[in-house]
Amino acid sequence: MNNKHTEEAEIEKEMEDVVQKKNIVRPQLNLRGAEIQGNYEDKDPTILLPNQSDDISHLALDIGGSLIKLVYFSRHDQDRSKKSPKDAVGSSSFNRRNMLSASSSGGGRLHFVNFETQKIMSVLEFISSKQLHLGSSEISSGNSATIKATGGGAFKFADLFKEKLGVSIDKEDEMDALVAGANFLLKAISHEAFTHVGGQKEFVQIDHDDLYPYLLVNIGSGVSIIKVDGDGTFERVSGTNVGGGTFWGLGKLLTKCQSFDELLEMSQRGDIKAVDMFVGDIYGGMDYSKIGLSATNIASSFGKAISENKELDDYRPEDLTLSLLRMISYNIGQIAYLNAFRFGIKRIFFGGFFIRGHAYTMNTISNAFNYWSKGEAQAMFLRHEGFLGALGAFLSSEKHGLDDLMPHQLVERFPMGAPYVGGRIHGPPIRDLNEKASTITNHIFEHDTSYRNAKACLHIDNLIPTNAWMIYP
Amino acid sequence: MNNKHTEEAEIEKEMEDVVQKKNIVRPQLNLRGAEIQGNYEDKDPTILLPNQSDDISHLALDIGGSLIKLVYFSRHDQDRSKKSPKDAVGSSSFNRRNMLSASSSGGGRLHFVNFETQKIMSVLEFISSKQLHLGSSEISSGNSATIKATGGGAFKFADLFKEKLGVSIDKEDEMDALVAGANFLLKAISHEAFTHVGGQKEFVQIDHDDLYPYLLVNIGSGVSIIKVDGDGTFERVSGTNVGGGTFWGLGKLLTKCQSFDELLEMSQRGDIKAVDMFVGDIYGGMDYSKIGLSATNIASSFGKAISENKELDDYRPEDLTLSLLRMISYNIGQIAYLNAFRFGIKRIFFGGFFIRGHAYTMNTISNAFNYWSKGEAQAMFLRHEGFLGALGAFLSSEKHGLDDLMPHQLVERFPMGAPYVGGRIHGPPIRDLNEKASTITNHIFEHDTSYRNAKACLHIDNLIPTNAWMIYP
Repeated sequence: MNNKHTEEAEIEKEMEDVVQKKNIVRPQLNLRGAEIQGNYEDKDPTILLPNQSDDISHLALDIGGSLIKLVYFSRHDQDRSKKSPKDAVGSSSFNRRNMLSASSSGGGRLHFVNFETQKIMSVLEFISSKQLHLGSSEISSGNSATIKATGGGAFKFADLFKEKLGVSIDKEDEMDALVAGANFLLKAISHEAFTHVGGQKEFVQIDHDDLYPYLLVNIGSGVSIIKVDGDGTFERVSGTNVGGGTFWGLGKLLTKCQSFDELLEMSQRGDIKAVDMFVGDIYGGMDYSKIGLSATNIASSFGKAISENKELDDYRPEDLTLSLLRMISYNIGQIAYLNAFRFGIKRIFFGGFFIRGHAYTMNTISNAFNYWSKGEAQAMFLRHEGFLGALGAFLSSEKHGLDDLMPHQLVERFPMGAPYVGGRIHGPPIRDLNEKASTITNHIFEHDTSYRNAKACLHIDNLIPTNAWMIYP
Repeated sequence: MNNKHTEEAEIEKEMEDVVQKKNIVRPQLNLRGAEIQGNYEDKDPTILLPNQSDDISHLALDIGGSLIKLVYFSRHDQDRSKKSPKDAVGSSSFNRRNMLSASSSGGGRLHFVNFETQKIMSVLEFISSKQLHLGSSEISSGNSATIKATGGGAFKFADLFKEKLGVSIDKEDEMDALVAGANFLLKAISHEAFTHVGGQKEFVQIDHDDLYPYLLVNIGSGVSIIKVDGDGTFERVSGTNVGGGTFWGLGKLLTKCQSFDELLEMSQRGDIKAVDMFVGDIYGGMDYSKIGLSATNIASSFGKAISENKELDDYRPEDLTLSLLRMISYNIGQIAYLNAFRFGIKRIFFGGFFIRGHAYTMNTISNAFNYWSKGEAQAMFLRHEGFLGALGAFLSSEKHGLDDLMPHQLVERFPMGAPYVGGRIHGPPIRDLNEKASTITNHIFEHDTSYRNAKACLHIDNLIPTNAWMIYP
């Protein structure tokens, strides 16, 4: 350990010299001891950075068509001084400069929150209240501040950020950011990826030497399917415009529900038999067994609405939303499978905010995948599914040492529940995930999921042996 | 020619002997000189059988989840005696036995009509009024009558046919029938298949020696994708439940339109920009050129409905139907392409009643195909798109001699418009195809499209040299 510490100190010194030569004060991201926080059922859990000393670039955004995803850094010492998360975050006495003067060895956390894109002004307010747009480098150097952002909104709202916050948007390519975020999570975070079959969540051990190629299916408003061949080596090979925006938009038209989560919540009480046409409906209750279709297979989504003398108001919105969710999830699973087959890829990860840890969505995608691949491939999901792009933007400033990271260096302990047994997590059953998938809308400070998710801690036994994990924001 | 006639006579005699040995009076389908009727823009044109002498099995059904497709035979001599098609078909004085006593050399026609499945009683009425369920064999032999039928409704409605018409349903497998119908049309009927790019219809010369393998994408309520490797050799390799039933069902819920054709008609005045989220909407009007997406690409079908403070009634139904039609057509085109790629197949034919010769539908499917295949494969369509299964059931009674048919034996003349020049038809522009895609609902006799389509005749110069084209119903 002494040797390692000496090496680290040398590298740190070297980097400091380089930075000083450029005459710019750059804070460093120190990922030594990085660990995820929250138990296995938590969505988008915060990531602890216990050894973070400098105030790093504390904000990155992914501004999509429907949602704005935000990753930001907060300091432990500041967190500790709070009476309650709500009080602290919402407090008007919150002072960025106080935070900068706090102990430099306290470490901190990465938080993950999201807003609806149409509530862009709330995002600006959130950033401003936390002074997240003011990096330490800008404050100390007097340079104008920049924010890393990806997604189409990085272009669309650049002027608004300049006008309201006085910051420039440093645009990161959307696909670059998605892939960088996914690679980071798959390589650095244990128990990030999991399968979801029959309501059963099962974590997947990622073999870092056998990660590539993989297919990344990112389901946002639309869907991008990206073949990832290595760190920074990828191609967007397919996609579909039947995605999360379709579910939300059509769902809103059919039910008058305003929010995505409301639609998901409603769907949990739905029955697709009320709306979908089954093989049995066509075959008089019989299977069409010759081609492997049972009476309970869906022949036509929404097909039952043809023949019934009913209008929209005669249908239960619960049934409509479930049929819609099923149709879109299954379709994405099928198109993803066909692309996986096209490239002979068996590792497929699904990300994007459409999924939201929703059991039915994941089961349906998994079923489609399993059916069409005849059981030869399984869909995998990511705990930070919605934040790939934002994380990628956060990490984008500098080449980082992900490829040098040894596999399984992060070994987790579970202080509460969910012991790790034989590659399978036996934790509490998946609860109502919608409860946790809150989207920040109006009462942004009350809905800060990063604090609500801070229910359990995962500790890391082995420290990362180098400080190659530095980025210059 | 004398030799050929002698051969024909010998074969006919031989078949007659076989039949008489079985002591069953079986009428024969004589396809010598079979020709299609109607000009190039007509949908589902009738097929002339000028040398048909016996009264053949004159009815076959394909009873799907949304529509019932019907192929039936009528005699020329009976047709000629009509003052007008409407009068004749609707006439209460129509007498099946009179028809049977008519001249046996007059020939006849195959007609193609469709009904909504929920109007099953109208079908029974139609069949009964034309006495189509009473084959000559049954009448002369005293055996109980049977009707060939395929699709799930052949199972579901078998008892109803027995009860109301006293006939048994002779069930034909749905996939068998689809493939048999497609093979028949592709081999025996010139100018059946065409491409449709940029609103331009272009007929495809089918090389009979290089037809297989092909992919048949049948879009009914749901979608079946069948890989056809030969006559009777095929596999259903894929499908999707996002099909015609989805368009109709969702369209009905969104707009209150009752009929499929009404939805199609309405969509012609629609604008997808009102409902769909474009790349430019996300990127502030810019392209995302790095991955080949322009500002005018659709990022998310129905995605614009998320962010606008509008309810369903605030949208124009024209816009909603067009977005829906676009979403479903494109999705089917994409899934079809991925399957074509999966099997390395470049000949892909789209059939099923979803298409209805509708220019926008065909263009959208073609665009999806062209985009994803990077121009390497083209979608092809069939003039009798909706009747593949019904035709297959019609032809199913006996093995027929399709494989012996020489290519290009049917050479057509065009008595009006649309001269055939260099493989491309320069006819009148595609008119409002919806006008022709009428579905028989209540006023079944007034809507008999088989007569409305009888606008022009195509004559055949070369007769088919054998009478191998016989089937025993």
